[in-house]
Amino acid sequence: MGLVVQKFGGSSVADVDRIKHVAKRVMDTHEAGDAVVVVVSALGDTTDDLIQLALQITPQPSDREMDVLMSTGEQISIALLSMAIHAMGHDAISFTGPQLDIVTDSAHRKARILSVDPTRIRRALDQDHIVIVAGFQGRDADENITTLGRGGSDTTAVALAAVLEAPVCEIYTDVDGVYTADPRIVPDARKIPVMHADEMLEMASAGSQVMNARAVEFAKKYGVPLHIRSSFAPDTGTLVTDKAEELDEVPVRGVSLDRADSKITIRQVPDRPGVSARLFTALSEADVNVDMIIQNVAEGEKADISFTVNKDDLNRAMTVCEALLSDIGGQALAADSDIAKVSIVGAGMAERSGVAAVMFSALGDAGVNIEMIATSEIKTSCIVRAWQAEEATRVVHAAFALGG
Amino acid sequence: MGLVVQKFGGSSVADVDRIKHVAKRVMDTHEAGDAVVVVVSALGDTTDDLIQLALQITPQPSDREMDVLMSTGEQISIALLSMAIHAMGHDAISFTGPQLDIVTDSAHRKARILSVDPTRIRRALDQDHIVIVAGFQGRDADENITTLGRGGSDTTAVALAAVLEAPVCEIYTDVDGVYTADPRIVPDARKIPVMHADEMLEMASAGSQVMNARAVEFAKKYGVPLHIRSSFAPDTGTLVTDKAEELDEVPVRGVSLDRADSKITIRQVPDRPGVSARLFTALSEADVNVDMIIQNVAEGEKADISFTVNKDDLNRAMTVCEALLSDIGGQALAADSDIAKVSIVGAGMAERSGVAAVMFSALGDAGVNIEMIATSEIKTSCIVRAWQAEEATRVVHAAFALGG
Repeated sequence: MGLVVQKFGGSSVADVDRIKHVAKRVMDTHEAGDAVVVVVSALGDTTDDLIQLALQITPQPSDREMDVLMSTGEQISIALLSMAIHAMGHDAISFTGPQLDIVTDSAHRKARILSVDPTRIRRALDQDHIVIVAGFQGRDADENITTLGRGGSDTTAVALAAVLEAPVCEIYTDVDGVYTADPRIVPDARKIPVMHADEMLEMASAGSQVMNARAVEFAKKYGVPLHIRSSFAPDTGTLVTDKAEELDEVPVRGVSLDRADSKITIRQVPDRPGVSARLFTALSEADVNVDMIIQNVAEGEKADISFTVNKDDLNRAMTVCEALLSDIGGQALAADSDIAKVSIVGAGMAERSGVAAVMFSALGDAGVNIEMIATSEIKTSCIVRAWQAEEATRVVHAAFALGG
Repeated sequence: MGLVVQKFGGSSVADVDRIKHVAKRVMDTHEAGDAVVVVVSALGDTTDDLIQLALQITPQPSDREMDVLMSTGEQISIALLSMAIHAMGHDAISFTGPQLDIVTDSAHRKARILSVDPTRIRRALDQDHIVIVAGFQGRDADENITTLGRGGSDTTAVALAAVLEAPVCEIYTDVDGVYTADPRIVPDARKIPVMHADEMLEMASAGSQVMNARAVEFAKKYGVPLHIRSSFAPDTGTLVTDKAEELDEVPVRGVSLDRADSKITIRQVPDRPGVSARLFTALSEADVNVDMIIQNVAEGEKADISFTVNKDDLNRAMTVCEALLSDIGGQALAADSDIAKVSIVGAGMAERSGVAAVMFSALGDAGVNIEMIATSEIKTSCIVRAWQAEEATRVVHAAFALGG
């Protein structure tokens, strides 16, 4: 008998009917002969509702108490899903994160999993129970309740699959796999049958919101194969694996579009050693994640420095820059949120020359100006005007003949 | 610095404004110089809402999963109350029952507290935190989440007061104390300033719904003085104590009215040894609590047996009786739910003769027929017709001159 870890997100358990539907899918897997561990998120909008409740009490609730509050969302889901499986005639048992000793660090609202004790799950599986686990949550060394932040239920599922040595972790979502581009933007986008974890990671960080990047990283680190598939349809989805034999190498696997960033430009900074170091150290200390950076020598000894940050961090980043501006000798400071990032991702990119050039040509031919470029081994990203972002995605997708 | 345990029920934390109001009361106590441990129930209708949600999944949810589900109610309350206290500028820290090692037996939905480890609360109090604890819940020896059943938050508060050796456990409720009778029925009922725990226990079991009987029993057992008072007014309420020097002995402390019971009568049962034993053993095995019992020799060697059970248990009790009827040789079986129980309670009753007679005379003079009578050291109860119950309460209250 095999073992499958299945994760269902909030939209998959949004109401009573959907919970029953999930119970049916879990039962189908179990009846096909596999032991099943199910990880669930909070019902639909529960988490947002709880946040709103907290904000009615105080505009700045403490992170520790937010975790006590928010972890109730998944706890409700696991109880209801267990009941739904009972109603279908099978044994199921639910556990919260703390009950399973999912131990995390103490960074409330964005905790990282340090260890998971599989003893209790194994005992329940040995008793032929279907095991239902609350995603997104754990406890720190001092028994405080913690939550894992965005994509936390994915991370819980991957951690359980790793510690239980499950051959696959199935991530059920409202799309039926990872596509070569967002089908709402690129009508002929195709579902990718198999892709490399590194590609998935870059797609996630480049804005393809199918799965959280941290969870993919976790899966890659522990060699857990992921199967990303639809909660609502039985079809095979996208397999994310590190096993080379299952992968065909292509220069470009897909095109991502990300509108989450803003650009900050500091003009005419004297080109002295240590200026960049001071700026980006200060931003890092203010907990601002910087994505792309370019520095052009503009006139004489002065350079323009541009970089992108998440829109959520923009105000904090601007405060840091304003405080440093005269200190580093910059002349002006500007923020620009009307940008988007278009990226091509492919593990085969490094071995082929001219891949980036194809992208740049396609954008140039379509009259799309490239404002910033960043490259990695398996990704090339271009910052373009926001209003041209969808057109840019389409022409790049076509240039690599990714369509169906 | 003293220590106070304060318990706030669901109606005291029904919405955001009331939570803020509770936070203010807790802060007032703390600012007056006491360390405070607060026990809270689930917000207003949360528990009922969760039960409804479960019933949409299955008509018979498992008790274990119901506890996982229902315990989220208090968890939401503790987080919000902590946040409200933070917003008023003081440190507060919340704990669930399992986090505090409130260990219970494994009787889900009606678990009993076996032990409480005060270490973590003491540590938090030493750090000058206001400690907020989820009532109604704990964990069993195997780390399963349990709930304590009706009045569970009162029991949690009393258990914490006992283990922390607090000089008083304040029970905040929507009435401002225990009255000589229900003021909605008896307009001149007075608030009782001090009463004996035994009296409170009998009042609770006789239908005065201010506080759960099991929690009062717990308080009596561990010698924890209770102060029952209003969440919404600052007045002193009713002190429940075992200290004789604080109590004036009166024959009757108050009059209770209880409509929770139904009467079952089995007619013409042969008066053989062992018949009652068989009947009441069978009822007990079916988890039916029997309250009052009378047995009259009716004609020849046959007796009528009447007894009262909680209305919730009536169907179960009737099933047991039907199965046994021919076996014990009874002739007919009848259930009657149009009854009510009027009781007088007073620790001084045992030392005075004629107290019960005053009650019977008052009822007789008012034309109220007494169908069953039960007496204990400090209580006399009469079963009357339901439609005469309020009048019966008023005349008995007047007969003992309990009015203001």
